[in-house]
Amino acid sequence: MYQLYYYPGNANLAPHILLEEIGADYKLVLVDRNQNEHKSPAYLKLNPTGRIPVLVDGDLVLYETAAICLHLADRHAAAGLAPAIGSRERAEFYKWIVYLTNTLQAELIVYFYPERLADDAAAAAQVKAHAERRTGDMLDLIEATLAAGSGPFLLGAAYRAVDPYLLMLCRWTRGMHHPARARPHLARFLETVMARPATQRAFAAEGIAAPFY
Amino acid sequence: MYQLYYYPGNANLAPHILLEEIGADYKLVLVDRNQNEHKSPAYLKLNPTGRIPVLVDGDLVLYETAAICLHLADRHAAAGLAPAIGSRERAEFYKWIVYLTNTLQAELIVYFYPERLADDAAAAAQVKAHAERRTGDMLDLIEATLAAGSGPFLLGAAYRAVDPYLLMLCRWTRGMHHPARARPHLARFLETVMARPATQRAFAAEGIAAPFY
Repeated sequence: MYQLYYYPGNANLAPHILLEEIGADYKLVLVDRNQNEHKSPAYLKLNPTGRIPVLVDGDLVLYETAAICLHLADRHAAAGLAPAIGSRERAEFYKWIVYLTNTLQAELIVYFYPERLADDAAAAAQVKAHAERRTGDMLDLIEATLAAGSGPFLLGAAYRAVDPYLLMLCRWTRGMHHPARARPHLARFLETVMARPATQRAFAAEGIAAPFY
Repeated sequence: MYQLYYYPGNANLAPHILLEEIGADYKLVLVDRNQNEHKSPAYLKLNPTGRIPVLVDGDLVLYETAAICLHLADRHAAAGLAPAIGSRERAEFYKWIVYLTNTLQAELIVYFYPERLADDAAAAAQVKAHAERRTGDMLDLIEATLAAGSGPFLLGAAYRAVDPYLLMLCRWTRGMHHPARARPHLARFLETVMARPATQRAFAAEGIAAPFY
């Protein structure tokens, strides 16, 4: 049985949806951010970066959300959450999961925590505004990709682990001036992924209320 | 035959070293940053993010450095550059390649281009200083990992695709006040990876002069 350490709506959401898609046996373990539990000595033993989530799989204690998604996809190959190893589609899949985590997610973290890069509130406000604009550029690139593709998913007809990842990150833009959902192809994509029963079960289990994205 | 679009010392360095480790048939294609060629329409067709490198593998045109490394490791499984699919070690390998690209590399990009997150020079200086301090914290975490491990590589005894990736990123810290090489376990790691003939061939082919890191 897996254990997924989570906080509602945090980066656990993508692996959580995948666990539901797989039909895996798992248990959620709440990390209470309000009590700063993700910076507690006990949690830092699981994940020295102090970030959520962690997946426990037997004696494997795994952090980094994209790595958890890749691991789950590999461990449950029959679920088809990643293309076949060595294939061209697998390379595209790697490209997107890497882009989502090192570019869009990294920029969103700057947007949410601009004070980490600034001494004063004025500089932090500059950082936040730039991160929001840059996030918009990234969403435009994804919108163009969806527009050029055959859909309905990021890699085409097959639902892959990158799709709930993209939903999760798009959800984080919902308070922006030009959120992901304001782009027509992204809006259709979000609606499609949100409609999946596994997505709905994960949102419900985390107690996430509308608006979902 | 692969084609690797590169600029000396850019993010192509890790995949370049891997191509040498594999003994693959490949050709380097220079992207002249001094002429802003990475933002040219022709290059943006290969990689709409305008970043270096791109790997061309037949009709596959792949960007995102970590994805290129994963793809090369999968396509040349006999080279042992990634652990077996579904294994615990594979999960750890994913964790590190994801951490290196979405945390250390992402922070280094902020360090090198702080003006992207600021309106004025004063705010950019704040951003740069914070990014340098944060990079140091990340290097400390990697140093602690190497200290706790059996070495000589990041995942232990076996040389994996994460190792030249880490060398490349550590090289980028060489101008910092507390560069990667100032940490004893990282220093030994860098020396070990740098001593490999494949590493030396890639550095030489890119015309990289000492100090290497």
